[in-house]
Amino acid sequence: MFAPVYLDHNATTATDPVVVEAMLPYLSGLCGNASSRHEYGRAARRAIDEARSKVAAAVGAHASEVVFTSGGSEANNLLIKGAAACLKPGLLAVSAIEHPCVIRPAEQLRKRGWTLHKLAVDAAGRVDVASFQAVIAEQPRIVSVMLANNETGVVQDVASLATQAGAAGAWFHTDAVQAVGKIAVDFRQLNAAGVNALSLSAHKIGGPKGAAALVLDKRLDIEPLIAGGGHERGLRSGTENVAAIVGFGVACELAAARLADVAPRLLALRERLERGLFSLGATLFGQAAERLPNTLYFAFPDIDGETLVGHLDRAGYALASGSACSSANPEPSHVLRAMGVEAELARGALRVSLGAANSAAEMDGFLVTLRATVLRLQQLTAMAV
Amino acid sequence: MFAPVYLDHNATTATDPVVVEAMLPYLSGLCGNASSRHEYGRAARRAIDEARSKVAAAVGAHASEVVFTSGGSEANNLLIKGAAACLKPGLLAVSAIEHPCVIRPAEQLRKRGWTLHKLAVDAAGRVDVASFQAVIAEQPRIVSVMLANNETGVVQDVASLATQAGAAGAWFHTDAVQAVGKIAVDFRQLNAAGVNALSLSAHKIGGPKGAAALVLDKRLDIEPLIAGGGHERGLRSGTENVAAIVGFGVACELAAARLADVAPRLLALRERLERGLFSLGATLFGQAAERLPNTLYFAFPDIDGETLVGHLDRAGYALASGSACSSANPEPSHVLRAMGVEAELARGALRVSLGAANSAAEMDGFLVTLRATVLRLQQLTAMAV
Repeated sequence: MFAPVYLDHNATTATDPVVVEAMLPYLSGLCGNASSRHEYGRAARRAIDEARSKVAAAVGAHASEVVFTSGGSEANNLLIKGAAACLKPGLLAVSAIEHPCVIRPAEQLRKRGWTLHKLAVDAAGRVDVASFQAVIAEQPRIVSVMLANNETGVVQDVASLATQAGAAGAWFHTDAVQAVGKIAVDFRQLNAAGVNALSLSAHKIGGPKGAAALVLDKRLDIEPLIAGGGHERGLRSGTENVAAIVGFGVACELAAARLADVAPRLLALRERLERGLFSLGATLFGQAAERLPNTLYFAFPDIDGETLVGHLDRAGYALASGSACSSANPEPSHVLRAMGVEAELARGALRVSLGAANSAAEMDGFLVTLRATVLRLQQLTAMAV
Repeated sequence: MFAPVYLDHNATTATDPVVVEAMLPYLSGLCGNASSRHEYGRAARRAIDEARSKVAAAVGAHASEVVFTSGGSEANNLLIKGAAACLKPGLLAVSAIEHPCVIRPAEQLRKRGWTLHKLAVDAAGRVDVASFQAVIAEQPRIVSVMLANNETGVVQDVASLATQAGAAGAWFHTDAVQAVGKIAVDFRQLNAAGVNALSLSAHKIGGPKGAAALVLDKRLDIEPLIAGGGHERGLRSGTENVAAIVGFGVACELAAARLADVAPRLLALRERLERGLFSLGATLFGQAAERLPNTLYFAFPDIDGETLVGHLDRAGYALASGSACSSANPEPSHVLRAMGVEAELARGALRVSLGAANSAAEMDGFLVTLRATVLRLQQLTAMAV
């Protein structure tokens, strides 16, 4: 059985066995519809309530602030479009390096009379403070800046940005899908600084695909994207995916409990890898900024990232050439372009995103394989010229 | 362990063991992100492709017409709001007995300049032909009529309605969430008659919660509700819930294979139950119409449905007093009100929805318990007067 070393945890993670175990009774037995008024329904409702408390606790929120969705993309769309539907059209500002599931709904709002401003970032991938302040002066109604970037791992000073946006009267959202489980995330603290909504997703933290949440400050009105039976306080209708929600709750609990142990371990692995990459002559992206402990984004000049990923896959290492979610798109990463990286170098970008199961031996093996593969590809390129 | 006899299959069904078995490798192992360009990602993509073919085959559609969503509510919202976003605002017509996840998004469109017309039904719960034709004469842009109603089980002559709507230039959608697995559903045939889109859901047919589909005629443009990475031909972004989609595929395959055997068996059970209910003096709803073989909707005068459901639950029978999805709502069923049923009788409504695992002995046991419970409640009512 072919089982490459998995270095793509920002794309998705293996569901933790403890999570799967917790899900099974809701998946394999008769799991009621949580809206049903009989014992099967009540049991499903109790399981959802318990999971809601666990998700809330993991990010320092109150259970009543958690709106379950089917995924991070839905949570982000719900916030962007849902909040906009309750406001008079005006200026909307999102960082230029947001995930497409923030940028695309923001672009869709142009049809509804909104003006979209993409916030510039500096060469290290941090939101540029001067241009942020210039946009805030124009009084945007909604601002969305991610807590950590999926490609570079760069962490934004969201609390400070939210405080400035809030002072100008904007609602502030942060996509924390990549941050949760890798750095401490506290909604109560962020909320005090001016963050009104935060998205997180189960499958990025050892939970199942199919469950995520929008944590929502109750002062912020949103219109449901999926309207119907009135589930989730009327903000997200549809029969709850009980098993996935239960798994999400357990995954949040585990992620919070393990963070203090896992984060330094991932950082040590990343630094080991970084030293090796430097010696191979790689360019590291976002290096000057605070980054997630598990994420490493780099390129070799003159080597195509897609090609390199293919070779590494065959050699037993699974990693990404960019954000998995937009890898159907052959364009160079919009994140790197926003950071001012030349298109040619950006096309070479490779992302390693580590998980708790990765080992130092895997890092060393990866570096050996990478060195050999890069040399071979450089020779091929040299011959072709 | 308390395990009441389950008579609420229109709310949700137990996931078939064969389905769970098929899902487990994608749930408990490392299941890749289907957008990833390595072996884990490709394996996930292959699993989704295979499931897409199975879902398509079960409803006579082409795989390329299947858009996966997280549930039936999302599929219906996607069609209603997504199609409207690509059209000039005009008249939108949905039947008065649609599920809330069709009616609510239709109501939301009023804010965007649309006029909503709710199509009347007759006393048996069928769309009233004369008023349908009157509405069609006003040239609606979108018409949505469900294939079978979740409460009454009444089956609409969707092909005929779609032909008339199509002749007037409308796009026609049908919510087939309750029809699939209970009666034959053929999108190719419906499409030829003028149906442009059809929704179905996994958890109503022995599949897991968290997967559903909108089957979509490619001539009909829709805007995504969840925009982002461009998954599902750009119509539904978000990391695919691989395990649920795989389970959905297998559930569709099983449902199609078993239909010829299951449908007459369910009908025989329903008729057995109907005879008993008549002898108890119950009023049956939708009796004059063609109905799903598994669904029975009835009331006893002067007995509150919610109260009866509670007593039956404690006596070991799980059934619904109305649509599970709107049972948080204390109002009498909008379906029965549209059929002209008095509010007081409507408040007594009870729904039995059978599944393949139910037996004749369970029907007989249920009738005995129901008789005793009804008599007791009638005595209590008599004493209270």
